[in-house]
Amino acid sequence: MRPGEKAVEWPGKEDAGLIFIGQIRTPWTSRPGCPRQGRRDGPICRVEVFEPWAEALEGIDNYDSIELLYWLHRSRRDIVLQSPRSDGTTRGAFSLRSPVRPNPIGTSLVTLVGIEGATLLVRGLDCLDGTPLIDIKPDRCQFTPLASSTPGNAEIG
Amino acid sequence: MRPGEKAVEWPGKEDAGLIFIGQIRTPWTSRPGCPRQGRRDGPICRVEVFEPWAEALEGIDNYDSIELLYWLHRSRRDIVLQSPRSDGTTRGAFSLRSPVRPNPIGTSLVTLVGIEGATLLVRGLDCLDGTPLIDIKPDRCQFTPLASSTPGNAEIG
Repeated sequence: MRPGEKAVEWPGKEDAGLIFIGQIRTPWTSRPGCPRQGRRDGPICRVEVFEPWAEALEGIDNYDSIELLYWLHRSRRDIVLQSPRSDGTTRGAFSLRSPVRPNPIGTSLVTLVGIEGATLLVRGLDCLDGTPLIDIKPDRCQFTPLASSTPGNAEIG
Repeated sequence: MRPGEKAVEWPGKEDAGLIFIGQIRTPWTSRPGCPRQGRRDGPICRVEVFEPWAEALEGIDNYDSIELLYWLHRSRRDIVLQSPRSDGTTRGAFSLRSPVRPNPIGTSLVTLVGIEGATLLVRGLDCLDGTPLIDIKPDRCQFTPLASSTPGNAEIG
């Protein structure tokens, strides 16, 4: 912990369970070497989907921008106030995109540049090699729901 | 399940645990009434952050667009091929933004319109009332990392 940072006592129990549906292969093998934010012209990374989930990729080739969710498995989870500049000034974890957060889930929008079987080739990531994958979704900006509309769709505030 | 849909056997074990850091209050109390996609001019919803996490909100007022992650607690997790139109044609779960997915995590970009203590008032959600909250992040488009740059930041592919 850095000067000014604050950790809380970790709750004794967990409320829901995740399964790892794949893993992400990137060029970055140490945390200090990872980019702070992915870029769409960054290196190609491999998103390997494990069985029995490969079939759930069907139709992903309709999109060239996809959202990935992954588990930042090397992160502490208990630091609520953080000092990104290590200068004693702090910010809350929820006002940062730091990997250190109560539920260390990273989200990225990436460009889908290729598909090899159950592996997606993408640009735009910034995570460590070996990061566990938890979800793949179409970019919300490219996706139009296929199901029929609902009354809620027309509701404005 | 609808005609053409396919479920897989659920893996026996889970790989990581989530904690619920709050809950989301929306006007929608039944799944058929929820919008298919949130809209930025939709109703104001309340994002209530539980202790001990409220302190992690510090600095969130720097952003008017934030990303929310939440647990779609009423969803089946085992249907890999889905038929959103109930017409026998199917698509993989990862090429849909359906709540039914191996790890039922929803992500939304919402407009932050107010803060009342540890509660955020936002527009743009589409989830059920009572949905468990798992993360809050600044919108990636508004966020510039505070920490110093790394070699990876300059890397292009």
